[in-house]
Amino acid sequence: MNPKARRSGPPTGGPAPELIDSGFALENDDAPFLHEGFNLADMAHVLDLLRRQIIPTDAARRILALLLEVHELSAEEFPYDPAFGEPYNSRERYFVQRLGTVAGWLHAGRPRREAARIALRLFLRAQLLELVEEGSRFVAACADQSAAHLTTLVPDQTYLQQAQPSTFGHYLLSFAHPAARDAERLLEGYDWVNRSPGGAGCVNGTRLLEDRSHIARALGFDGVIEHTRDAMWQVDGLIHILATAASLASTQSKLAEDLEIWSSSEFDFVDLDDGYTRSSILMPQKRNPYSLSIVRGASGILIGRLSGFLAVAKSPSARSDNLIFAYGEVPRALDLSIRVTRLMVGVVATLTVNAERMRESLDAGYTQATDLTEYITQYCGVDYRTAYTVVGNTVREASRRGIPGHGITGQMLDETARAEVGHGWGLAELDLSEVLDPMSIVTTRTAMGGAAPQAVAEMVDHCRNTSSDLAARVEVRRTAVTEATESLLAQARAVAASASASAPEEEP
Amino acid sequence: MNPKARRSGPPTGGPAPELIDSGFALENDDAPFLHEGFNLADMAHVLDLLRRQIIPTDAARRILALLLEVHELSAEEFPYDPAFGEPYNSRERYFVQRLGTVAGWLHAGRPRREAARIALRLFLRAQLLELVEEGSRFVAACADQSAAHLTTLVPDQTYLQQAQPSTFGHYLLSFAHPAARDAERLLEGYDWVNRSPGGAGCVNGTRLLEDRSHIARALGFDGVIEHTRDAMWQVDGLIHILATAASLASTQSKLAEDLEIWSSSEFDFVDLDDGYTRSSILMPQKRNPYSLSIVRGASGILIGRLSGFLAVAKSPSARSDNLIFAYGEVPRALDLSIRVTRLMVGVVATLTVNAERMRESLDAGYTQATDLTEYITQYCGVDYRTAYTVVGNTVREASRRGIPGHGITGQMLDETARAEVGHGWGLAELDLSEVLDPMSIVTTRTAMGGAAPQAVAEMVDHCRNTSSDLAARVEVRRTAVTEATESLLAQARAVAASASASAPEEEP
Amino acid sequence: MNPKARRSGPPTGGPAPELIDSGFALENDDAPFLHEGFNLADMAHVLDLLRRQIIPTDAARRILALLLEVHELSAEEFPYDPAFGEPYNSRERYFVQRLGTVAGWLHAGRPRREAARIALRLFLRAQLLELVEEGSRFVAACADQSAAHLTTLVPDQTYLQQAQPSTFGHYLLSFAHPAARDAERLLEGYDWVNRSPGGAGCVNGTRLLEDRSHIARALGFDGVIEHTRDAMWQVDGLIHILATAASLASTQSKLAEDLEIWSSSEFDFVDLDDGYTRSSILMPQKRNPYSLSIVRGASGILIGRLSGFLAVAKSPSARSDNLIFAYGEVPRALDLSIRVTRLMVGVVATLTVNAERMRESLDAGYTQATDLTEYITQYCGVDYRTAYTVVGNTVREASRRGIPGHGITGQMLDETARAEVGHGWGLAELDLSEVLDPMSIVTTRTAMGGAAPQAVAEMVDHCRNTSSDLAARVEVRRTAVTEATESLLAQARAVAASASASAPEEEP
Amino acid sequence: MNPKARRSGPPTGGPAPELIDSGFALENDDAPFLHEGFNLADMAHVLDLLRRQIIPTDAARRILALLLEVHELSAEEFPYDPAFGEPYNSRERYFVQRLGTVAGWLHAGRPRREAARIALRLFLRAQLLELVEEGSRFVAACADQSAAHLTTLVPDQTYLQQAQPSTFGHYLLSFAHPAARDAERLLEGYDWVNRSPGGAGCVNGTRLLEDRSHIARALGFDGVIEHTRDAMWQVDGLIHILATAASLASTQSKLAEDLEIWSSSEFDFVDLDDGYTRSSILMPQKRNPYSLSIVRGASGILIGRLSGFLAVAKSPSARSDNLIFAYGEVPRALDLSIRVTRLMVGVVATLTVNAERMRESLDAGYTQATDLTEYITQYCGVDYRTAYTVVGNTVREASRRGIPGHGITGQMLDETARAEVGHGWGLAELDLSEVLDPMSIVTTRTAMGGAAPQAVAEMVDHCRNTSSDLAARVEVRRTAVTEATESLLAQARAVAASASASAPEEEP
Repeated sequence: MNPKARRSGPPTGGPAPELIDSGFALENDDAPFLHEGFNLADMAHVLDLLRRQIIPTDAARRILALLLEVHELSAEEFPYDPAFGEPYNSRERYFVQRLGTVAGWLHAGRPRREAARIALRLFLRAQLLELVEEGSRFVAACADQSAAHLTTLVPDQTYLQQAQPSTFGHYLLSFAHPAARDAERLLEGYDWVNRSPGGAGCVNGTRLLEDRSHIARALGFDGVIEHTRDAMWQVDGLIHILATAASLASTQSKLAEDLEIWSSSEFDFVDLDDGYTRSSILMPQKRNPYSLSIVRGASGILIGRLSGFLAVAKSPSARSDNLIFAYGEVPRALDLSIRVTRLMVGVVATLTVNAERMRESLDAGYTQATDLTEYITQYCGVDYRTAYTVVGNTVREASRRGIPGHGITGQMLDETARAEVGHGWGLAELDLSEVLDPMSIVTTRTAMGGAAPQAVAEMVDHCRNTSSDLAARVEVRRTAVTEATESLLAQARAVAASASASAPEEEP
Repeated sequence: MNPKARRSGPPTGGPAPELIDSGFALENDDAPFLHEGFNLADMAHVLDLLRRQIIPTDAARRILALLLEVHELSAEEFPYDPAFGEPYNSRERYFVQRLGTVAGWLHAGRPRREAARIALRLFLRAQLLELVEEGSRFVAACADQSAAHLTTLVPDQTYLQQAQPSTFGHYLLSFAHPAARDAERLLEGYDWVNRSPGGAGCVNGTRLLEDRSHIARALGFDGVIEHTRDAMWQVDGLIHILATAASLASTQSKLAEDLEIWSSSEFDFVDLDDGYTRSSILMPQKRNPYSLSIVRGASGILIGRLSGFLAVAKSPSARSDNLIFAYGEVPRALDLSIRVTRLMVGVVATLTVNAERMRESLDAGYTQATDLTEYITQYCGVDYRTAYTVVGNTVREASRRGIPGHGITGQMLDETARAEVGHGWGLAELDLSEVLDPMSIVTTRTAMGGAAPQAVAEMVDHCRNTSSDLAARVEVRRTAVTEATESLLAQARAVAASASASAPEEEP
Repeated sequence: MNPKARRSGPPTGGPAPELIDSGFALENDDAPFLHEGFNLADMAHVLDLLRRQIIPTDAARRILALLLEVHELSAEEFPYDPAFGEPYNSRERYFVQRLGTVAGWLHAGRPRREAARIALRLFLRAQLLELVEEGSRFVAACADQSAAHLTTLVPDQTYLQQAQPSTFGHYLLSFAHPAARDAERLLEGYDWVNRSPGGAGCVNGTRLLEDRSHIARALGFDGVIEHTRDAMWQVDGLIHILATAASLASTQSKLAEDLEIWSSSEFDFVDLDDGYTRSSILMPQKRNPYSLSIVRGASGILIGRLSGFLAVAKSPSARSDNLIFAYGEVPRALDLSIRVTRLMVGVVATLTVNAERMRESLDAGYTQATDLTEYITQYCGVDYRTAYTVVGNTVREASRRGIPGHGITGQMLDETARAEVGHGWGLAELDLSEVLDPMSIVTTRTAMGGAAPQAVAEMVDHCRNTSSDLAARVEVRRTAVTEATESLLAQARAVAASASASAPEEEP
Repeated sequence: MNPKARRSGPPTGGPAPELIDSGFALENDDAPFLHEGFNLADMAHVLDLLRRQIIPTDAARRILALLLEVHELSAEEFPYDPAFGEPYNSRERYFVQRLGTVAGWLHAGRPRREAARIALRLFLRAQLLELVEEGSRFVAACADQSAAHLTTLVPDQTYLQQAQPSTFGHYLLSFAHPAARDAERLLEGYDWVNRSPGGAGCVNGTRLLEDRSHIARALGFDGVIEHTRDAMWQVDGLIHILATAASLASTQSKLAEDLEIWSSSEFDFVDLDDGYTRSSILMPQKRNPYSLSIVRGASGILIGRLSGFLAVAKSPSARSDNLIFAYGEVPRALDLSIRVTRLMVGVVATLTVNAERMRESLDAGYTQATDLTEYITQYCGVDYRTAYTVVGNTVREASRRGIPGHGITGQMLDETARAEVGHGWGLAELDLSEVLDPMSIVTTRTAMGGAAPQAVAEMVDHCRNTSSDLAARVEVRRTAVTEATESLLAQARAVAASASASAPEEEP
């Protein structure tokens, strides 16, 4: 078609300094996340090439020996250097330096991208297990504190206005439930992560390969991602994971903000353990609930990590930006998520609850109003709205006169009823003490999920079971990964040892 | 504690005009999403109150009769008016106007919040089923087009540079897979949505209730959300749903941008059906692929809807902003998602593929280079890196001389090899035509998920099965919802009809 | 070049139903924002065509007459209909129906895009002026309340822990300053908005035009956007405006959350006016600060609107999605911003401040500690760190013994000093009452911007001046716009009236 | 009030390990951004304390000597360690170790927060100047390439469909304009950054201070932020800066995506210089425009950094999360912005433009259609819509017959006109070559901002002037900062040297 075809073939000359300083430097910053996975992915690849007799035995042996050596180095010790390109380029260069052209066999049938994709998944699966584990510990910590506060009365608030009497146990457990659901979603994220993109060639498969399951098994993946192009480029699971991490942080941020408010001297409902606070360098009286600021800020940061990643992924298909930025963004986001979850576990586990002060606050308010209204509808047969108006006006008057909720009398209600509907309701003689007593009120919430101590105790059990179950599932997966890795290393060692003495290192 | 208690009791006087114009107007904008659900939630609530004999039979009868009447009105016909508060206030006002104080029984044991929470879930479950259904149709449309293009060669691109020969069928199917996974996630979102928050009282349960399962069953929910505070305030599932919708849109946006590029006259690979394009009012030659702009823009919008909702939810617990904004944001986001998914189904199903032009483009390039290199490593026993260098230099020279990939000869390769490694590789005599032929290359990709026609055909089958399965699961859920709703209406009608003639409408 | 050129020319057949239901429906939802601007842009265009004698006089006359007629219709009255395409298509159709082919002259030298771009700017400039005006009122409202509370003591808090004594006036004014800066930025946004993209042709100019300033002047723009392609596609100013709106909302959200906390019965520092609260339908004691929830939620929503728009704009250049979605997103975001700013003006202006309760809270704490420490460093010549340790330990002991800050004595300090540094500091005899008195402390903050009443009073003056200045600049711009619009209408009327009787309406 | 006051006084015991590993580790990661600023802020503070005789001369001398010593250390060399708290705690600890209690004078009248706030501003002002400088270079690079391509024809595209003939010079310059506007906004951001929060005490001022201008001047600030609470907590300028960086990246991302498309072999319009591409390790034919992926991805990342920061700032006022996360997020975002802007400068400056291929593509299309239509309206006196229909149908027919735009004849038009309006328009005899010639068309775009070479040349001049002006303003600011810093160091040295020999280091 064209008289001259478009200029093709690899670029010549080195990268521009600005490129080294941007793209390559950015990618090298992420090398620590990929380093171990690169080694394992390379080993599995070489073993697969050897199995298929695509690579000479001696080449396989020498490459594996070097990979095992590099496997012992930390990412910091390995000469990753942006001047040579992204991390895989540094590896390529190092391997050629050490092995000469033999190193070239490593690249058969596989783009650099595949090694990186695998390495990312290996790193993420470890992070996800850690995050689920911390999530399960958070659920357990809430459950433990709840169990200790089944009868600690607290005014439950909406709009931060006292609403109804409840217990601190009931309150706190409401954070365990969403956390448990997000931990469950993270395990689904694990199932997405722990599938092998290996053997996808560039994007359409490779002529050198007939069975992709070997690499998958060698690396401890649960299976193979079917479509090769999808395998190389899918990001839906990363979005799902980041969104779930943001959701989990959102739950923790809500609790953190509640506790920060309740830690004020005006509320004085709770006290953070000293280890989770920090002093002011200027103000000697202060014990600042610093941990809570960290949790809340991290929640905001994670919102940005998610929306940033989604914005990156708003790109055509199979363009490198779709995933280059994932190598650093997703591990860093999960790392933050792990750290703050762990922090929040500590905050909850060591929290001091000021039951006396909570009770004082409850006693000064009118959280009995709803129960009183309901009682009136049943006792007097009045509709809720009318009863509500009478109780509302009574409360308004009581607050004007400085009478708290538990001081409301049938007489006061009758008076208001007369003003409102023209006649009293015969409440004057009645003993309202039980319907006005917060503990008695709480005790009526016996239906599933309510604030009655027995109902909360049941939920505590459920949450503890959920927590144990999550932890157990983490353990099963972790064991499977460890076994696969050990088996892979053993195979690599076996090949490397087979006759390695006979193969002197070639001059580069 | 305080000499005077804090001012309590309901506010007096009407709302400020700025409040009507902001909060109340905003909430009333969302009334259409909640209207039907309000009616059903109210019916279920009244029937439950009646069952427990908390409400007089006659009151129940009259309220249900009116609810059935309102059920026949559209949201537009019902007098929702910000001047009276948020939508539930308008309902309250209307019910009192029509029934007098009898209407007051409706509020027993339940905050307005509960009705709204239920109504939102009822609306979302319908939307989710619709979105999953459109998702399944998208998977099927991709599968159908793929099946028609198992042998339509296309240069697969990375960085939009020709990479390797593939088929349009293989390419297109790579969008079906993530879409199917997101549809699956949306069904998990459905499981979260379709559980009942009913019977939670304010947040800690209610004294009037002993069994929350009645309301759940009446409304067709799969079960009850255990913890009552969690039931009232959970947002994790909404985040999950919005994130999944954004992810699905991201997949569609990638395809849309690819197609927009391929629709250019320079590529000329595909043509949108006229019905999905629009003309320019100024430029008479133009057929603009307008649909693709809409899909891509919607993807950006959904990123914002998700991050906005997460930012809203970065708030303390049990504050109203946590959910007030969900009533409009989530339904609107899902509605957009449904519309563009449906649009993209149409785009894919009616797409014209210009196989000839794709082939021309492929023939002008060098996508055979990888296969040629792999062939050399196997034929000559050279390592991949060395073979790569020789092929790379050969391609560079060929492109300089205007020779396309399929015109490369063994002689050219030998020459480059001599320059590079000091000797030729004996390729001069070889017939390279098969290794350089795109169709032959594609045919070698027979491993799972590869581009070989048979491998793609198998994936087409899988995708079709997945699509049918998704559609079937939608149908099961839809039927269950319909049956529950009909049963609820029937119960309401039965009570309403029992003796309704005897109860003349009270003056308000 | 190609044997057959790519299919060109306008599409035939109508749009697909899915396209009507997505792209066209979405664009028609935005018609109300563009309607007036369309009319004015069309008038200016026709007048310019006439001036250049490109359009027959009679055609101009008849088109202008119809435009003036349509100018009297609201968007709701005009037959915008997605079935005919986006709003400009509906207009085209309507004009042809009314005028026949004469209507066709309207499109000379200008794409539909130009009319829409202009219309958006005309709408946004009105919104921006309104928002700046509300911003200036917010600054004034804060200043007025501050002026009334120059000596109302409050414990300023960091981490919501009492930090130092301050005044409510000083506290509240800290929200006026960032709001004023954002109002200033919005006026810069106005300068960006109020420039004419007119006369850009498609993107590269038009052969029909020699002077773009006529249209600019006619529409009241401050000038012309130089580069025609930039003029058509620039979005930087929209990003700037949305970011500033989000920033302004962020300031208001901070204040709203503070006030929501301070409205709790435990703090009881402030009370919202009844008109800005709402009752609970269930709980008769409640007065919920609903307005504050709206403000805080809106802040989250605006974060999403900004990030969504940025994600939309992450697209290649000159693609329609870059701006199609702006037509609705930006006006809706600014509308929300205007409404909540207005709401917050009302909240601040009518706020009740509970000075007594603030003072009680201050008196129960230790906010004097820093001043006491500073006093000691100066009086005793001890370094700050040592003095801090002694005061810190003294406070710790005092709180253990239930002694508030103002009860700390020199004797207590000497004791702690002895324990810490081995000797007392001779403070026992000292009268510490002034250094421990909150009002005295506040009075020392006389440097610029401090909490001393005089310093705050000066800032109140500055803020009032800033507010007036902003309002005045709004007024100048508003007047200029009104005059330009009236002049344009007058010109249009003059032409339309010139001989309109002689031109009977053509059959379409 | 309370029988026992709430527990007050600094926390005892060390921080919990989870806190060290989260909050403190996160803050220490940001120490490199603040290190230099901490030193300068501390010097200015000590000099101010000395001026006011608040601190003993000898203490000042010794602290300054140590500060000057630490000023010579890089952040990596200084013992920042999360185990001791956030970075300022490590500094405090180090100073006490070196100077003993004398170090305690450093904290008089100033919270740690103030030092950090100042340090952040000092770092950001340097970054902003660098970013504006790179922005000015980007404008210049565009202008230079534009100047070289004033007559290089290109089909301007909308929807990536050929729209009208234009030049590469006109096209490219459309990116210089928004970049220049954002550079201007960044200088406004600089004005916000370069004001002193110094002397704000905690939040309400300090008793030790009467004039805040000394510290401001010493640190090279342009002035003082008036309100002390605002000074400590304002974030509006950070939002503005991040939004502008995101906007600038958005402009560059658009250009990058355009160039990536135009770099495809199908378009073949442009070629990146080798230094900005990278090879594939698998595919020897590839030269991947890797730089463009980096730019586009960075644009997405910056969207997330902005929305994340806004989400963080959705917090009550004066809570630490409001700014703790800013210390790392904003510098990192600006650093990314600087790097990719610099990268894009290189990409643009070294870009190869394939004028021949652009022309071929133009010649194969119908970009003349609009001009032809306009010509007909003027020549034949037909309205635009009718002429449009005739030209549109002619183009449709021509494309069917493989005739490109420049091959359209008057005869063809007459034929279509006859079919459409019943008679020909007498175009058959006409020489249409000029109206169909792309270069002639471009030459008609002479109005301001149009594509005519002269109009573009004028804009090139404007852009070059803008670029120089921006660079000059950067230079002025940079010089002022340098001079202030040198003067501050000189003052510190003078004090430190005054009698430093006499003051042996105290044992800690």
